[in-house]
Amino acid sequence: METQKWTQLWLNYKDAETKPGTADIVVEGFDENAPVVANAIAEFKRAARGISLSLLHKDTIPGEGYRALGSEDGITVEASDERGILYGVFAAIRQMYCGKRAVEVAEEASPKNPLRMMNHWDNMDGSIERGYSGESFFFENEEIVIGDRTRDYARFMASIGINGVVINNVNVKGAASYLITDRYFGRLSELSELFEGYGIKLYMSLNFASPIEIGGMDTCDPLDQKVIAWWEDKIKEVYDRLPNLGGFLVKADSEGRPGPFTYGRTQADGANMLADVIKPYGGIIIWRCFVYNCTQDWRDYKTDRARAGYDYFKGLDGAYHDNVILQIKNGPMDFQIREPVSPLLGGLTKTNQILEVQIAQEYTGHQIDLCYLIPLYKEVLDFHTHCDPEKDTVADVVSGRTMGNTLGGMAAVINTGNDLNWTGNDLAAANLYGFGRLAFDTDLSAEEIAREWIAMTFGLPKKEEDILCSMLLRSREVYEKYTSPLGIGWMVNPMGHYGPSVDGYEYSRWGTYHRADHLGIGVDRTEKGTGYCNQYYEENAKMYSDPKTCPEELVLFFHHLPYTYMLKSGKSLIQHIYDSHFEGEEQARGLAADWDSLKDVIPEAAFGRVKERFDLQLDNAREWRDQVNSYFFRKSGIADEKGRTIY
Amino acid sequence: METQKWTQLWLNYKDAETKPGTADIVVEGFDENAPVVANAIAEFKRAARGISLSLLHKDTIPGEGYRALGSEDGITVEASDERGILYGVFAAIRQMYCGKRAVEVAEEASPKNPLRMMNHWDNMDGSIERGYSGESFFFENEEIVIGDRTRDYARFMASIGINGVVINNVNVKGAASYLITDRYFGRLSELSELFEGYGIKLYMSLNFASPIEIGGMDTCDPLDQKVIAWWEDKIKEVYDRLPNLGGFLVKADSEGRPGPFTYGRTQADGANMLADVIKPYGGIIIWRCFVYNCTQDWRDYKTDRARAGYDYFKGLDGAYHDNVILQIKNGPMDFQIREPVSPLLGGLTKTNQILEVQIAQEYTGHQIDLCYLIPLYKEVLDFHTHCDPEKDTVADVVSGRTMGNTLGGMAAVINTGNDLNWTGNDLAAANLYGFGRLAFDTDLSAEEIAREWIAMTFGLPKKEEDILCSMLLRSREVYEKYTSPLGIGWMVNPMGHYGPSVDGYEYSRWGTYHRADHLGIGVDRTEKGTGYCNQYYEENAKMYSDPKTCPEELVLFFHHLPYTYMLKSGKSLIQHIYDSHFEGEEQARGLAADWDSLKDVIPEAAFGRVKERFDLQLDNAREWRDQVNSYFFRKSGIADEKGRTIY
Repeated sequence: METQKWTQLWLNYKDAETKPGTADIVVEGFDENAPVVANAIAEFKRAARGISLSLLHKDTIPGEGYRALGSEDGITVEASDERGILYGVFAAIRQMYCGKRAVEVAEEASPKNPLRMMNHWDNMDGSIERGYSGESFFFENEEIVIGDRTRDYARFMASIGINGVVINNVNVKGAASYLITDRYFGRLSELSELFEGYGIKLYMSLNFASPIEIGGMDTCDPLDQKVIAWWEDKIKEVYDRLPNLGGFLVKADSEGRPGPFTYGRTQADGANMLADVIKPYGGIIIWRCFVYNCTQDWRDYKTDRARAGYDYFKGLDGAYHDNVILQIKNGPMDFQIREPVSPLLGGLTKTNQILEVQIAQEYTGHQIDLCYLIPLYKEVLDFHTHCDPEKDTVADVVSGRTMGNTLGGMAAVINTGNDLNWTGNDLAAANLYGFGRLAFDTDLSAEEIAREWIAMTFGLPKKEEDILCSMLLRSREVYEKYTSPLGIGWMVNPMGHYGPSVDGYEYSRWGTYHRADHLGIGVDRTEKGTGYCNQYYEENAKMYSDPKTCPEELVLFFHHLPYTYMLKSGKSLIQHIYDSHFEGEEQARGLAADWDSLKDVIPEAAFGRVKERFDLQLDNAREWRDQVNSYFFRKSGIADEKGRTIY
Repeated sequence: METQKWTQLWLNYKDAETKPGTADIVVEGFDENAPVVANAIAEFKRAARGISLSLLHKDTIPGEGYRALGSEDGITVEASDERGILYGVFAAIRQMYCGKRAVEVAEEASPKNPLRMMNHWDNMDGSIERGYSGESFFFENEEIVIGDRTRDYARFMASIGINGVVINNVNVKGAASYLITDRYFGRLSELSELFEGYGIKLYMSLNFASPIEIGGMDTCDPLDQKVIAWWEDKIKEVYDRLPNLGGFLVKADSEGRPGPFTYGRTQADGANMLADVIKPYGGIIIWRCFVYNCTQDWRDYKTDRARAGYDYFKGLDGAYHDNVILQIKNGPMDFQIREPVSPLLGGLTKTNQILEVQIAQEYTGHQIDLCYLIPLYKEVLDFHTHCDPEKDTVADVVSGRTMGNTLGGMAAVINTGNDLNWTGNDLAAANLYGFGRLAFDTDLSAEEIAREWIAMTFGLPKKEEDILCSMLLRSREVYEKYTSPLGIGWMVNPMGHYGPSVDGYEYSRWGTYHRADHLGIGVDRTEKGTGYCNQYYEENAKMYSDPKTCPEELVLFFHHLPYTYMLKSGKSLIQHIYDSHFEGEEQARGLAADWDSLKDVIPEAAFGRVKERFDLQLDNAREWRDQVNSYFFRKSGIADEKGRTIY
């Protein structure tokens, strides 16, 4: 059964081949041979054999939007542009695979976010930074690989509304610095064309030090005229060869990456210089805000990594040019299972913003442990920043609704690799699917998305769909319970980021501390502490500043509290740690048991793959439970009220 | 000045070249062209220009022994064999470089230990396991390298009396499994001959699974007749090509290495089979006793890694054949800065034993931190095992004095690599030199050895020699003070083994725990605990069992004690931890300051290299001090009596 080289994920079109193959295709107002339109038609034929399709031009529908309607005559998709047609066709397919008959198909939608991007952390040697699904399918031995798998990838991305892909790691090293040279233009052009056929713009991560590394210059000072001239020539050369290139993603002055700080320049100086150079070609510069001191001294209680993004970027709000977008991680630290929303999101009121999330499960279980992340993304999107009297959620800010700007959206560090099933854990594809759907329509609920994905992927009977849907929806909380408590984060094996090491990041240079002693734990980020709280608008600052009003799931992120502190549950802090860890491990076993109950309805190979992962997850959950509980019991000397085994 | 490709260590013969070059050489009773004799003469000419040398055969001198005597006519060396001549010549050179005039030279000696071996953990790809001095000079890209450096290495080894060298890592992997095949015999033969010229027998580490890995068989069961036949053919082939091969070192059933346990056989079954096969060729099998469960569960308080060696090997005492030697690490764990002596040493009373120590500073500072290890080796050698009414020290046991056996001695994991100065830190060469000297003459003191090495290497004025000698002699205690306290060990970064991580090995699978909680720390290895104490003879078992009689530097190895436990110093345990860590860091600064005071008398390049290391050592000492103190302060809540800064 699994003789294919890779799976078709949620586009596997179960049983489609048993249906009749020919039906009328009508195209009006579009060129049916245009790659996007042709791809849409091909996809429809593949998925919905025997059903007629009409593609009609309709000026009144917003860009990238569509209206998909079923009737006795088949499906009609109307749109004002080719991407709308493509998305409309995929919408019709989705509705049909989610249980509607063709005649029932009815959906009108346009994307909530202008930019919906995937960021690959793929290196040109084929490795993937924080990749848990095999090697890169874009790169191999410093060459660009293009084949059937690339096309399938583009289909998947188009089906969930992705319109931009950054193909290479933000840490641009080695051969990747040469992506903007003649050495790679040929293959890049081919890839860009393939992507364009699915409505996807190609982006690349840029090495800010390119003038030095590939230009042979002795500086990359963004205000140096010779540097600017070098970039002008370089960008012209790039766009001559890659006219459809969307632009560049830049990680500068972070974790060893070069940047404007080296030359006493601001982040805006760096971003604006590149933005001005690329502007004539319609390109954009996406500038990551992940800038912090990664050589902090753990003895230093004043410096706070959580503050860094805001401290570095807020002061320059308004200074960034129109085609610059700041890409901001959802939280102020680094993709922990629970963090507050970054105060930069909405803290900036005059700057284009992209919300960055991580589908790759770096800190959330390496695609071994089940962790459905859409609820986490939803929380971020729904967070009221108080930056505006009405349109103040993160979703409002990044979509452009708050400021009326047109550049913004969502980006995700993707979780794919060349594993047969693309995402290591078959169930981790739900996060991939879900991110795209959510970026397209931030109003969708985590459950709606989960059900769509299940229906598309497995097509289960209602009872089994309910079980799997419940597994997904519980999974994030389960993972959180058996790992680090109440928003404190980390406690993870350094480097690898899988498995517990309570003090693993405690005496390190990364700004990642829990400050646990024999009396209590947590970081005081109120005014009396690092002052991080005050980076939020007043309502939120006030809420976070008081442990009584601070959401309890974040209380150790904002406060250092004694183990005897009473939570709203009536439990002491230490008892909560014990209880949540015992519960988390138990609930992980519950997830595994639920999966076992699906044995008869899930294809055998996929079932086996996921089952193996659950076995590993249970080991992991047990290690976390026992190490965290033992650590705090040994440290506090306070016994578990229920007398359970702590080592 | 440093245009040479590598230094000459303690054989640099300062100013020798300014002396007249010709003098009489008389050889009687030896073939002056025999490689060993010729090498001895060449060395003498190089070191002691203008001085006459007579080499005389004298049957009454024990094997490998010599009598070296100076007179107005020059130096006379008498010996009964060629090695004795070689060692006698090096002894005369040493005495002259240690300040004696030729006429004053007078030394009669023969080695205390039959086997004096170096173990290289060099891999054939050129890497060195736990190497801190560059890459291998034996192997490069899976080939054997032989050149001027190899010869210099052999000279160094001969000068300190080493008579056996295992060239490859005990973890035999990859190409190293093929060292016993035609692919490498040519080069090995060349290397063996070069070694022989310096009185050194070539040994190799053997892959116990060779019948499978290179023989294409499906088993390596040592009692399988086909396996034995395979080994018989293989060993014949090896000795046909390498007639002078000393034998093999085997690490079996340890840390993932295959071994007899796989087939339900004993360690003796495995060792004896190989020993029988190799016996006709005069070869020996050195069998490492580093066998333990390396997948222990940290929750398990019963299993004790410290017990493993004795538990596995004691029961088979007497079962090992005559040409088997068990190689036993000095301590029951793994080369920590302080461990009790392994109870196997002397615990075995009918088995050949080699004491294994580690010159490579795996857990003792990576040849960055200064740590003169000869005092540690001396403690081990001088330890009274109580295995015999009179001859009961470890030195007695391994030398053969206790049992009257002829196979035994000392082996060291060497600290060399292809760094210019061979040992990373120039001062770490004192450990290399010292091990050889001590293995040859276990009665030498750590100070005598230090002074010899200083004189040979730097030839300092008395005052400066005193300073450097004091530095060496203080260094081990300094390192111990700022690292893990009172014999508990570990607390080190996992994998790398440099720098602190108090819980780094606490929740791991390696059997390495400190069991610290808010009240106390230490492992109960008395009868009430793991029972490890009882592996010693009664006198020692009794001594270790009671914290009042247990040597305090080991008290946490044997006992779990409250932080408030009063040490003989009148300090509480916790105060001792604080004080020793503050002192250790301060004393490390003292070492560095002493080094600075030697600037004018140490060659510039060497001075600079060592100074850079001290800079790193001070960072390391500070990290250890602060992390260990903070860890225990946070855990115990007990303040430092002196109110010093703890984070």
